[in-house]
Amino acid sequence: MEPADAHRLILAALRDQPFADLGFAKVDHHRTIRQGFPEVVLGLGKTPQQIAGIAAEIVKRGNPLLITRADEAAWHAVQAKVDGTEFHEIARCITLKGVMEPGKGTIVLCSAGTSDMPVAEEAAVTAELMGNTVDRLYDIGVAGIHRLLSQRTRLESARVVIVVAGMEGALPSVVAGMIGVPVIAVPTSVGYGASFGGVAALLGMLNSCANGVSVVNIDNGYGAGCIASMINHL
Amino acid sequence: MEPADAHRLILAALRDQPFADLGFAKVDHHRTIRQGFPEVVLGLGKTPQQIAGIAAEIVKRGNPLLITRADEAAWHAVQAKVDGTEFHEIARCITLKGVMEPGKGTIVLCSAGTSDMPVAEEAAVTAELMGNTVDRLYDIGVAGIHRLLSQRTRLESARVVIVVAGMEGALPSVVAGMIGVPVIAVPTSVGYGASFGGVAALLGMLNSCANGVSVVNIDNGYGAGCIASMINHL
Amino acid sequence: MEPADAHRLILAALRDQPFADLGFAKVDHHRTIRQGFPEVVLGLGKTPQQIAGIAAEIVKRGNPLLITRADEAAWHAVQAKVDGTEFHEIARCITLKGVMEPGKGTIVLCSAGTSDMPVAEEAAVTAELMGNTVDRLYDIGVAGIHRLLSQRTRLESARVVIVVAGMEGALPSVVAGMIGVPVIAVPTSVGYGASFGGVAALLGMLNSCANGVSVVNIDNGYGAGCIASMINHL
Amino acid sequence: MEPADAHRLILAALRDQPFADLGFAKVDHHRTIRQGFPEVVLGLGKTPQQIAGIAAEIVKRGNPLLITRADEAAWHAVQAKVDGTEFHEIARCITLKGVMEPGKGTIVLCSAGTSDMPVAEEAAVTAELMGNTVDRLYDIGVAGIHRLLSQRTRLESARVVIVVAGMEGALPSVVAGMIGVPVIAVPTSVGYGASFGGVAALLGMLNSCANGVSVVNIDNGYGAGCIASMINHL
Amino acid sequence: MEPADAHRLILAALRDQPFADLGFAKVDHHRTIRQGFPEVVLGLGKTPQQIAGIAAEIVKRGNPLLITRADEAAWHAVQAKVDGTEFHEIARCITLKGVMEPGKGTIVLCSAGTSDMPVAEEAAVTAELMGNTVDRLYDIGVAGIHRLLSQRTRLESARVVIVVAGMEGALPSVVAGMIGVPVIAVPTSVGYGASFGGVAALLGMLNSCANGVSVVNIDNGYGAGCIASMINHL
Amino acid sequence: MEPADAHRLILAALRDQPFADLGFAKVDHHRTIRQGFPEVVLGLGKTPQQIAGIAAEIVKRGNPLLITRADEAAWHAVQAKVDGTEFHEIARCITLKGVMEPGKGTIVLCSAGTSDMPVAEEAAVTAELMGNTVDRLYDIGVAGIHRLLSQRTRLESARVVIVVAGMEGALPSVVAGMIGVPVIAVPTSVGYGASFGGVAALLGMLNSCANGVSVVNIDNGYGAGCIASMINHL
Amino acid sequence: MEPADAHRLILAALRDQPFADLGFAKVDHHRTIRQGFPEVVLGLGKTPQQIAGIAAEIVKRGNPLLITRADEAAWHAVQAKVDGTEFHEIARCITLKGVMEPGKGTIVLCSAGTSDMPVAEEAAVTAELMGNTVDRLYDIGVAGIHRLLSQRTRLESARVVIVVAGMEGALPSVVAGMIGVPVIAVPTSVGYGASFGGVAALLGMLNSCANGVSVVNIDNGYGAGCIASMINHL
Amino acid sequence: MEPADAHRLILAALRDQPFADLGFAKVDHHRTIRQGFPEVVLGLGKTPQQIAGIAAEIVKRGNPLLITRADEAAWHAVQAKVDGTEFHEIARCITLKGVMEPGKGTIVLCSAGTSDMPVAEEAAVTAELMGNTVDRLYDIGVAGIHRLLSQRTRLESARVVIVVAGMEGALPSVVAGMIGVPVIAVPTSVGYGASFGGVAALLGMLNSCANGVSVVNIDNGYGAGCIASMINHL
Repeated sequence: MEPADAHRLILAALRDQPFADLGFAKVDHHRTIRQGFPEVVLGLGKTPQQIAGIAAEIVKRGNPLLITRADEAAWHAVQAKVDGTEFHEIARCITLKGVMEPGKGTIVLCSAGTSDMPVAEEAAVTAELMGNTVDRLYDIGVAGIHRLLSQRTRLESARVVIVVAGMEGALPSVVAGMIGVPVIAVPTSVGYGASFGGVAALLGMLNSCANGVSVVNIDNGYGAGCIASMINHL
Repeated sequence: MEPADAHRLILAALRDQPFADLGFAKVDHHRTIRQGFPEVVLGLGKTPQQIAGIAAEIVKRGNPLLITRADEAAWHAVQAKVDGTEFHEIARCITLKGVMEPGKGTIVLCSAGTSDMPVAEEAAVTAELMGNTVDRLYDIGVAGIHRLLSQRTRLESARVVIVVAGMEGALPSVVAGMIGVPVIAVPTSVGYGASFGGVAALLGMLNSCANGVSVVNIDNGYGAGCIASMINHL
Repeated sequence: MEPADAHRLILAALRDQPFADLGFAKVDHHRTIRQGFPEVVLGLGKTPQQIAGIAAEIVKRGNPLLITRADEAAWHAVQAKVDGTEFHEIARCITLKGVMEPGKGTIVLCSAGTSDMPVAEEAAVTAELMGNTVDRLYDIGVAGIHRLLSQRTRLESARVVIVVAGMEGALPSVVAGMIGVPVIAVPTSVGYGASFGGVAALLGMLNSCANGVSVVNIDNGYGAGCIASMINHL
Repeated sequence: MEPADAHRLILAALRDQPFADLGFAKVDHHRTIRQGFPEVVLGLGKTPQQIAGIAAEIVKRGNPLLITRADEAAWHAVQAKVDGTEFHEIARCITLKGVMEPGKGTIVLCSAGTSDMPVAEEAAVTAELMGNTVDRLYDIGVAGIHRLLSQRTRLESARVVIVVAGMEGALPSVVAGMIGVPVIAVPTSVGYGASFGGVAALLGMLNSCANGVSVVNIDNGYGAGCIASMINHL
Repeated sequence: MEPADAHRLILAALRDQPFADLGFAKVDHHRTIRQGFPEVVLGLGKTPQQIAGIAAEIVKRGNPLLITRADEAAWHAVQAKVDGTEFHEIARCITLKGVMEPGKGTIVLCSAGTSDMPVAEEAAVTAELMGNTVDRLYDIGVAGIHRLLSQRTRLESARVVIVVAGMEGALPSVVAGMIGVPVIAVPTSVGYGASFGGVAALLGMLNSCANGVSVVNIDNGYGAGCIASMINHL
Repeated sequence: MEPADAHRLILAALRDQPFADLGFAKVDHHRTIRQGFPEVVLGLGKTPQQIAGIAAEIVKRGNPLLITRADEAAWHAVQAKVDGTEFHEIARCITLKGVMEPGKGTIVLCSAGTSDMPVAEEAAVTAELMGNTVDRLYDIGVAGIHRLLSQRTRLESARVVIVVAGMEGALPSVVAGMIGVPVIAVPTSVGYGASFGGVAALLGMLNSCANGVSVVNIDNGYGAGCIASMINHL
Repeated sequence: MEPADAHRLILAALRDQPFADLGFAKVDHHRTIRQGFPEVVLGLGKTPQQIAGIAAEIVKRGNPLLITRADEAAWHAVQAKVDGTEFHEIARCITLKGVMEPGKGTIVLCSAGTSDMPVAEEAAVTAELMGNTVDRLYDIGVAGIHRLLSQRTRLESARVVIVVAGMEGALPSVVAGMIGVPVIAVPTSVGYGASFGGVAALLGMLNSCANGVSVVNIDNGYGAGCIASMINHL
Repeated sequence: MEPADAHRLILAALRDQPFADLGFAKVDHHRTIRQGFPEVVLGLGKTPQQIAGIAAEIVKRGNPLLITRADEAAWHAVQAKVDGTEFHEIARCITLKGVMEPGKGTIVLCSAGTSDMPVAEEAAVTAELMGNTVDRLYDIGVAGIHRLLSQRTRLESARVVIVVAGMEGALPSVVAGMIGVPVIAVPTSVGYGASFGGVAALLGMLNSCANGVSVVNIDNGYGAGCIASMINHL
């Protein structure tokens, strides 16, 4: 086959892949096949109307729904088009449950401080919607290390761990040093001054001297929940 | 001729170049001759009154008008002094059409996500006002590459391509690798955390491993539209 | 029990945990129990004598050995104290094989360009030493996307994927969009100018719009290999 | 004792350490024993309800109370649960006095300008609550060095000095050069442009050519007050 | 057609696209069809042997050859495998000429200072090899603006302009204000102190207040030459 | 004399230097003697009451008054305590004129664009209050260089030049290349994206290839006006 | 007394303060009186001859000597002028002991890894020369937390603690949470990639969530030793 | 006159301005007329041959010569073409004296430490070559403020002051607060760690709270000397 023919063939094949063109968005209906979960909507920077439009398109194929970084206005717009959604205020998420294959073990979710809760809850809501059991260990920052050490049994029962921390972001290193399973570290923008909106925590986590720590974007609770779920479904 | 004489001559010559001094602004009436389009007004940081004053000065010589980064207040001020202007809400532009030489081919305008639309539309409004045909391919980010690949024919029909993307800014590299015409990459401030207001996308585009990618400032849809128009008029 | 008593007890218990104090280093002999692999030596910033001393301490308990960022001088020092080690020149690693539990699937290891090989090989050597099968896909950067797409079958056979890329670091997003398993992204310092020693690639990967991407430090092939192995042993 | 047994023992011991689990927070009741002062609440990023809940938990064990970065709304919530608290408006702190061992000498607290007062007062309120005498020298920046030199006697009477400064942050170097006791330098976010929210002052202080200067985070008056108190109690 | 079938078809088609797998590199033989010029080799970070291997693979299909960031050692390795190559010392390029379609106009290449020559020459060698006529205007920085103004006729004869400048990078703005064709700006790492290896020039060019300026990576003469050639062939 | 005696003497002498201690501020009454102008008040970060208190203290010794970064609320507070002050709305300054020694020549004040006016006017108000004649050349940015060149005679009549510019900050280099007197460059925060709040302009000016350019902080119109006045009074 | 007279007096008094002018350096002989230790020489950026000249000047008044960041060449130059000096190879210090008042307690010096030893030893040499007892706890990084916990008794015996750590710099937070005395944190440049030469560790330490942590410059072992000594002498 | 005619005239006039085209450089012979001193050669990034060629061109018109950032190799190349030049080893400058109009007063040149000497001497050599008297006050950093205060009479005798300082860069603020003439601040790259190659000093100087401080690039002794000379010749 000639390259030119190959090109034509590819084109033809791709045109048949399902996505829905809403003009302002191309909803990827093939994603469930490729990744086991439909497209997730990042609410940030989209109007309530755009969010609701995409949500309706996703749901009408029988898919579960996850919208992150959403506020109440977005939820009201979604409610007008989709029945039965739920709004998680702390996590800032809109969800509609679906039937998901259950994860194989427990995802342990640690957070360093009370202010990290919105990000931690975004991770929890994501992982739970994707079929996982989540065990939350909140406010166990390293300044009072006995709080962390006292949870050792629960930590050791994890198949994968998510650690959410702002400020110096030291918690993932200590946690990862105590166990032998993957740790997904989520830096948060909690802090002030030289925390630089989460950069200090991000750098701390990237430079972790402990084994098994990989990192996602600042405040990206969703990303961590999704990766943990992927690992937990292996 | 002595240098001193030369200086005097230059001075005399330059004094005759046309610009209008409004006190707070010197409107460059010579620009149409040099560049084929009159001075464009960046609304950012100017009062509605200043914007309207400059607009009136430009239009009274029979020029088309483009004001970027404008809001409704600016438009109302302009309407009081100039008839027939149009406000593009998503693009945040005020325009008054003029007679422009048509571009020679099509400018294909790609955007990675729905949230990139304000910047993409600023580029589109600019290019269209300058006499070009613009073909919009929105929401074709690399996470669902089949959406991009399915548009190959349209991409290959371009004389020049504008690619607008935030977050990791990977789209221009993939697009440029598929075609043989210049790609103007526009990073956007869409994202959060380590996107640093568009810096991640900007750096990604500057380091593109593909041929033919040049870059403009973060969110500079106008600049990309203008360069694409220049190329399309060659 | 009183807190004071608790403290005394903890102290007593911890003193019994095995580590060997070499003066300049405390070799953690408990790590194999906690994490399934003994302490790994980062050669960077240590003298050949220090490296050899730590290596001997690790090996004398019957452990396998991994030293990263090592040069030939370090290898010679190690050889004087430990028999049977191997030096991986491109990967800059010294190893001594041990009996490891095999991983459950294949780790696919992608790299964007030829210059990324040292980092990719560090990941490969690590993962192989830890008992995994590694399938290498080198030089499949996004500027010629057909090279990547043509490897789809191999990608889809992965239980976990490592993607190594410098410059704009776009490859992990494209790869992650094509599959449904975790992607460990490794930015490299390959590039010049505004790549800032790997920062551009790092930011690109942290801001990936695709699901399943987590990131390790710039040039941290070891870390990626280790995490991939952990996941592959779940 | 086997490692496994040691682990079990540690776990048992740690479980008995006192902390109170409020769900969103784990109040560390053991801190008074370890550090001589109960847990301090950083108000930033917590809701008034969360702050009040933690405050009540701390106070009910007879502890003094310090909440930093608090506003009036937080104070009203605290007042509903705890009697007798005080709100320091400039310092943005809520306090409830306790019986503290007095510090051994005087803490001299210098600030470079009037705008640095909120941070300086946070340090003062902290140190005073912890049992110290604080001598305030405000607005003695280096542009009029005679103001500083005229306070030499008071400076020389200090057991430890806190220096609060924004902009170029030069004051700690000059002060430290005049005396022989430790200087805790606090950069503030006072300034504009290339002060980068306190980064210029922070860097200046970290690079101090004078002996005895150590630095805390930008705007961290609390931290400086706490360290100065620790030193003053030695 | 079902998505699964589509996937199988794409795969089949792509497998037929020509690239040569050298193990450490996949040479993209399809690139000439897509972009009119074969793969260009970035010498940076590759061994002379790797460079020579890739060069031989490119040339054996009758393609012209361009290797950038090469030194003499690389050239000697290439000479052993490929006849007739040329080494451009200042430009640090190895080339083998091919038959190229000539560009339609002149590319004017400006540089601000003598130290910018290596980058400027890399652009010139690239553009000339790709079939273009290049008119060099060197050392016309803005500190002696009459040097630039005196070249106005040559500038105005350009179909596209490349401007290479380090330090404050002001030249592209001034040049672009004088003409109506696209300007490709290349920041260089020439300078010291707060030039930060070309960052000052890069930022200056990205923020250009003149129309028609797009930017490539610091010191990326090749990229600028390639884009200018693409535009000049439209 | 012994060092200890010397110290005592210095102390005694310094205590007699005049400053007024307002508690929150130490007004430096000696500054007029040292520098020819009384203390200037930076309004930023001070309450209207603090500003008014300092203003009253300055004026009651018969001094002129300059308050920068002030708003209308501050002005009203000042008016309640000091008669005859003036509020400069664009410059955001409050002034009370005094008798100043006139500067020896003209200060030419250039600005690149209309949006730079607040900073430029702050410089103008400062310099005029300090006894200088200021010749304003506004909106002469380098994108239409004939606007600048046409003002050559006025530029050449300057004893010292202030150049205010945002975005790429190229104007000072071009101006300084045309004349032989000192140029004080003021970067402004005008711009967006990669202007980083004035950093691009700041770096451009620091790296100026032209002679005679020194730089002040971003948006520091006051500083530039003050330095220009110092030079103009030599 | 008039201000002018006061100035004259100050001047007279200051002239009598002892310092020795070597032309390239002004050795401050008054420092021992002010701070209890003579001037310390930072070897970095000085020639061996300059170092030796300053050293001779210090020693000839009977003072002890400390030169930091010195190499063997500097030591040889010093030996030619000063008898009895010692060279500490790991610490890169030259010393001559003097009679110092002993510190009141023990300085505990922790380091996270073997590669941090040069910085830790610089702190140790400094503190010991200044009359302190130093207890070294090396290689107790947080990835194997039992190594740290097992040293609790030694930690609790400290009057002040120095913690030296590179990479993520998490150790000071954990240590400070375990004890109630001041912690001087020293970030080191140990690490690679996103450690940015110690910036990650620096930021981590500045953002410590534990009480009592203050920070010095990256690799500034001397500064930490000196502050710890000051505290230990209170 | 029509714009087109004006353009033609300007062009004609400018062509007659004298500059010499050496191919790799355009030597600006008109600069002496515009600025009172011929073009100065920045040695950095130029080959000895290029430097010597430019030097010969400058000198053959009877001009004095200044080459900065030069090494001995450059000097030898220059000596082969130009008689009577001098090499200033510490300042890294090559000079040939000319007849210059003397400056009106004294330039006082302060440096904070011994390691700042190369930059300070570059400023001194520049200013002296341009006809000024320079009074050097070296090693008067703020850590021993009596060294600075003791030089008050010499400082007060200055017509303009240059202050050279690395590390925290605090000296210009203190000096400027003591006098009423312009201060040119030169940050140096002296320091380590968080000095970031002079950035800390640069930021400190830009944020100076004292009047009269303007700043040049890091290590730019030449620039400061040149500006001081311009001011001193007014």
